[in-house]
Amino acid sequence: MTRVDPLTGIFAALANPTRRAILARLLSGEASVIELAKPFAMTQPAVSKHLKVLERAGLISRGRDRQRRPRRLQAKPLAEATEWLEPYRKLWERRFQHLDSLLDQMKAQEKKRARKKNRRGPP
Amino acid sequence: MTRVDPLTGIFAALANPTRRAILARLLSGEASVIELAKPFAMTQPAVSKHLKVLERAGLISRGRDRQRRPRRLQAKPLAEATEWLEPYRKLWERRFQHLDSLLDQMKAQEKKRARKKNRRGPP
Repeated sequence: MTRVDPLTGIFAALANPTRRAILARLLSGEASVIELAKPFAMTQPAVSKHLKVLERAGLISRGRDRQRRPRRLQAKPLAEATEWLEPYRKLWERRFQHLDSLLDQMKAQEKKRARKKNRRGPP
Repeated sequence: MTRVDPLTGIFAALANPTRRAILARLLSGEASVIELAKPFAMTQPAVSKHLKVLERAGLISRGRDRQRRPRRLQAKPLAEATEWLEPYRKLWERRFQHLDSLLDQMKAQEKKRARKKNRRGPP
């Protein structure tokens, strides 16, 4: 693996459902490799490979317990990924609000039309 | 390329600095392939390859102009990526606030100690 910029390493680490599931598991606290391997129909070496990718990206670290070597979440790089995504989230929110107000306008016009029709009475 | 789940496709598309730069360029409006290729020392086919990855991940679409075929940003999938990252951002924020309050406590103790020393006067 050649050296990549941090964000590329972070996003590459996230581009795998097993690695995302491991991170989700670590949200509720540190866990040993055996504990992490359990929910996946996977050998320990296969899980260890995923853990290595996560470790290289700085997304997990090893706890102090020498026997269990528990992995724990490092949330800071993920916060940096969120930061990179922020302008896109804002853009999406603005577009969504715009669509929402367009819908409100359409509804208001629909009501107005219905009221006019009612005033005229049934044909 | 085998079919992958949407989030995996999105994060894989983001795991490349050129593709992230293309998305950043599209934040300020749609652009043709020629316009997108300009800032990168890259051939048009190389840029087209990146655009294909972004298109497959649903992050860009093609505008109506048949001649220019401008690419435009599709922000919704990126908003979904932000959503996935949300609990990690929150965790980081909580940890950061915890560190911040620890620092405040240390500063307060330091001040207290300095005041005590001053009351005792110079040796």
